[in-house]
Amino acid sequence: MKDKQPLTVRIYFEDTDAGGIVYHANYLKYMERARTEWLREIGFEQDSLLEQSIAFVVKQLNINYIAPAKFNQLLSIHTQIVKLNRASMVFKQTITNQDNKLITAADVTVACVQLQTGKPSRIPAQILGEISRVI
Amino acid sequence: MKDKQPLTVRIYFEDTDAGGIVYHANYLKYMERARTEWLREIGFEQDSLLEQSIAFVVKQLNINYIAPAKFNQLLSIHTQIVKLNRASMVFKQTITNQDNKLITAADVTVACVQLQTGKPSRIPAQILGEISRVI
Amino acid sequence: MKDKQPLTVRIYFEDTDAGGIVYHANYLKYMERARTEWLREIGFEQDSLLEQSIAFVVKQLNINYIAPAKFNQLLSIHTQIVKLNRASMVFKQTITNQDNKLITAADVTVACVQLQTGKPSRIPAQILGEISRVI
Amino acid sequence: MKDKQPLTVRIYFEDTDAGGIVYHANYLKYMERARTEWLREIGFEQDSLLEQSIAFVVKQLNINYIAPAKFNQLLSIHTQIVKLNRASMVFKQTITNQDNKLITAADVTVACVQLQTGKPSRIPAQILGEISRVI
Repeated sequence: MKDKQPLTVRIYFEDTDAGGIVYHANYLKYMERARTEWLREIGFEQDSLLEQSIAFVVKQLNINYIAPAKFNQLLSIHTQIVKLNRASMVFKQTITNQDNKLITAADVTVACVQLQTGKPSRIPAQILGEISRVI
Repeated sequence: MKDKQPLTVRIYFEDTDAGGIVYHANYLKYMERARTEWLREIGFEQDSLLEQSIAFVVKQLNINYIAPAKFNQLLSIHTQIVKLNRASMVFKQTITNQDNKLITAADVTVACVQLQTGKPSRIPAQILGEISRVI
Repeated sequence: MKDKQPLTVRIYFEDTDAGGIVYHANYLKYMERARTEWLREIGFEQDSLLEQSIAFVVKQLNINYIAPAKFNQLLSIHTQIVKLNRASMVFKQTITNQDNKLITAADVTVACVQLQTGKPSRIPAQILGEISRVI
Repeated sequence: MKDKQPLTVRIYFEDTDAGGIVYHANYLKYMERARTEWLREIGFEQDSLLEQSIAFVVKQLNINYIAPAKFNQLLSIHTQIVKLNRASMVFKQTITNQDNKLITAADVTVACVQLQTGKPSRIPAQILGEISRVI
């Protein structure tokens, strides 16, 4: 895959907890923001997909918390697809801080579903084609 | 209004920020949970309302932060209606901690809207009647 | 381990997203609430631990999203320890809805760390003893 | 005050609720992000302030929800100081969407406090001077 610019995320008070570090569930939000921007960059807007009753949902997630991130730091969210199926794909995402230290790393399986039923659905051909082209 | 049991909310890590206290926006969540339980207690479930394309949305909120709440404390959310109109109502909500110390107090104006259009809608007669009865 | 009462969590608007279901990162919050209550039930308060500069942090998490949970549902968070080490432990946590349908299941590795340094630290003997006793 | 660039915020799934719009408490987060960036732009980093045991906390907030914001929209958060005291200041903040439609408007009173005690504290002279200069 050609290298894409990572998404940059600033850590605000809302992201931290009383331990003084980013609350562990919030990294999942950053990763989801980055996948959204990744899709946008290759030409797909998720609100248009919702109008077509198609949604991408997380089916499986495996995350390692390697080092804590702190208030006011600037994080980079790196996103790449490592596996592409007809109705799902696997992203590898890593988060580094401004000193290029690895904070967390995750494999995220995202499935394409029919919004009303929640049933698996083939990734629309146009999206599948475009993803195949860039990975 | 006859006194209702306040909603009890435990403060978990997710609620706090790097200042060691509850993040200021999170009190709005506790108040919304309490309004939901208040409605449930008088017999109305908001998922049923959504199915009827009716939603209650916050239109105006005025909140005073009086003392900080801390991780692991047990808060009580007190809820009462102080004004009832045809398409909106005003709640007075206060939050106290386990030592009965006042943490925050707010006036919250909630409007009834038509879900698709977002336009103001009369509060359904049954709900209006039930609220009139209890306040 | 003797069966413990699962933690009950109501789904409020704050928990859902525009897809009409619980936002995937929020299940991690419910699981953390349940681990906190689990520790409390065997006699340990995490604010006391923080005062001793000890914290439990998530090091690794593997979660499967099996079925969506919806606004206003009542979830049960089941928590058990499946592995206990000197400085870490592995929880198996599952979430079911009121119809006893499995929503999500996760393995969560939690490590004991020294708060200031973030370095791994032995689980205090008293806690280790108590956990050994109940599992 | 010389016009400052508003902060731009993209609406992700994490920000929305089952009503399909931004959850009302989340606008407070955007406003806090914008105040943080406002302070940064005039030269002050809040992590440095925390190290000096000084924090800015919200004391009072009055917010009007005018129109809903939706998933995937791009919001602009406009921030200006309308009152500057020795130990507090009042911000006027408005949020508009990409069509320049007004979404919400708030007055936010922020106080300077001593982190350990939570007691009001004079705004450090350097910050007070810099704010006076730019407003």
